[in-house]
Amino acid sequence: MVSPEEERELIVTVLSKLGASRPESAIQADVLTEGDLRGHHSHGLQRLPVLAARIRKRLIRVNVDPEYRWTADSVLSVDGKDGLGTFVADSALNVAKSALGQRGIVAVAIRNSSHLGMIGYYCEKKAREGLICIAMTVSEPLVHPHGGTEALVGTNPIAIGIPSDPTPFLFDMATSTSAIGKILAAKHRGESIPEGWAVDAHGKSTTDPDAALQGALTPAAGPKGYGLGIAIGILAGLLPGAEIGRLVAGTLDTEQRCTKGDFFLLMNPRAFAGGPTLATQVAGYLDELRHSRPREGSGAVIVPGDRSRNLREERLRSGIPLPKEVWRAAERLRDEF
Amino acid sequence: MVSPEEERELIVTVLSKLGASRPESAIQADVLTEGDLRGHHSHGLQRLPVLAARIRKRLIRVNVDPEYRWTADSVLSVDGKDGLGTFVADSALNVAKSALGQRGIVAVAIRNSSHLGMIGYYCEKKAREGLICIAMTVSEPLVHPHGGTEALVGTNPIAIGIPSDPTPFLFDMATSTSAIGKILAAKHRGESIPEGWAVDAHGKSTTDPDAALQGALTPAAGPKGYGLGIAIGILAGLLPGAEIGRLVAGTLDTEQRCTKGDFFLLMNPRAFAGGPTLATQVAGYLDELRHSRPREGSGAVIVPGDRSRNLREERLRSGIPLPKEVWRAAERLRDEF
Repeated sequence: MVSPEEERELIVTVLSKLGASRPESAIQADVLTEGDLRGHHSHGLQRLPVLAARIRKRLIRVNVDPEYRWTADSVLSVDGKDGLGTFVADSALNVAKSALGQRGIVAVAIRNSSHLGMIGYYCEKKAREGLICIAMTVSEPLVHPHGGTEALVGTNPIAIGIPSDPTPFLFDMATSTSAIGKILAAKHRGESIPEGWAVDAHGKSTTDPDAALQGALTPAAGPKGYGLGIAIGILAGLLPGAEIGRLVAGTLDTEQRCTKGDFFLLMNPRAFAGGPTLATQVAGYLDELRHSRPREGSGAVIVPGDRSRNLREERLRSGIPLPKEVWRAAERLRDEF
Repeated sequence: MVSPEEERELIVTVLSKLGASRPESAIQADVLTEGDLRGHHSHGLQRLPVLAARIRKRLIRVNVDPEYRWTADSVLSVDGKDGLGTFVADSALNVAKSALGQRGIVAVAIRNSSHLGMIGYYCEKKAREGLICIAMTVSEPLVHPHGGTEALVGTNPIAIGIPSDPTPFLFDMATSTSAIGKILAAKHRGESIPEGWAVDAHGKSTTDPDAALQGALTPAAGPKGYGLGIAIGILAGLLPGAEIGRLVAGTLDTEQRCTKGDFFLLMNPRAFAGGPTLATQVAGYLDELRHSRPREGSGAVIVPGDRSRNLREERLRSGIPLPKEVWRAAERLRDEF
């Protein structure tokens, strides 16, 4: 068991040694630690060795000054200068927030910036500050078109954070049925994957993780996940001046420059007619859902964000159960230079 | 077979007799006719009798002047004064468009406005004008929470239109697995519905349309459609100052005031770094998807919007096959007073 403070400190130490600025290290450490606190370990400390390798190869630049350009009154266009995606996004959202007063809504379009980690992180943070935040980002092509077989669409996730009392509403979904991380985890454990998650290289449904990794993930709900995945690819990839489909690279590997983009919408509820009562009304509605009749054999009805928030609270008390090899790999990075 | 001109003219005549202004009748007629042209008959002429009854009962007002209020520089808050949702939304988007130049993005939040019809209509129209348009709206509670049984979430759809050459990208989805219109159509034909579309009043999966109508629709892809449905309910319901969940009424019946809301985002691609080449890049990507290898036993891969656009073109040539009773009912409305 590791405390979140220990995890953050270890990450900050490693990134500082690699030349990252104090704000860069701090936000990157917080995003990874929050991933582990919520049980999203594929977005947690296990990413640090890849991050470190990317920084050493200068695929990720440290100590960058992202370029913020207001390409319209309510559009902030950001060139991340190949910086840490976590730092670039967090800084850009703060710039957008400080300009939100008059505008009510600001769109933030980011290019040349590395992997964001768990995108719900930014949405929840801004929702805690009283704002509505919608985040979209783009991945490598991993998902086949509905009716197709080739991996041409990203898992292109969307997250939405909305103020609510006492804790924000937070929803975070990939547009694929499952995540590539879950396929890799099944492979690692020598287990098969559920029917419906993936197809093999010939486009046939498969439960073998190796065959799935040669093939493609399925889009969530067929044409729905497919269409939404394309739309997010356009909004978060092409619109900021980044890439889509086969041309997206460098989010997870240690070989290629990151060519993906990100797209955020930040809104002040108080700029809308329903704003003043929004947080209270959202809370009331979510409670109505929670108290509704569960399906036979199910536990109580939950709402998006409940499960990971509960896990986070438990881990804040009792620590984060990290695999020894993940922690050791991070310690080696700290000690090796 | 009916031509779109005949259908539009009949609707305009009926609505004009009911006191609607020329612009109100024209846009409502166009939205219903476009629904029929694309094969979405539940959003076509068959809605006219309900619309007429609602107007007569003054649940829908005609000849309204919606109130447009800029509640922030880039937020247009609209009170539709219980007017025709089609007219209110179309007018509001035109107001937003004329203000888009400096802003780059405008959010439009609408309350007190009746059913929009097919929400993709507005997105495609604006995409043809070179803009990105995202539309969300709220329905009566028809969908059960993931893990739940009670109909507490709307089918809350989202549509996204993006400029592309030569025709826009248009994606339109409900957050339920299927649509209530398809359950009603199955009931009408005396057929059963596919497993997975709905549960009965006890929360058990059912293939009986009558039992489904007493129960609830399932959310698309379980927790994903559920979470997205809640988020859209908040953005398009509560944020504009309208309702969510059980308090949404009056979109389809002839008894209740309409209490739903709508939410639109309108963006000028040219306010973004990727704007100048967007339409060409989108077209290239969509063609790459279309030319990719189809699944065995499937036809060519298509992209969202292809099927309904092809049907529309065919029907522009050969006419719209409307059931006689639907056409007769509309004629009776025209002739009865």
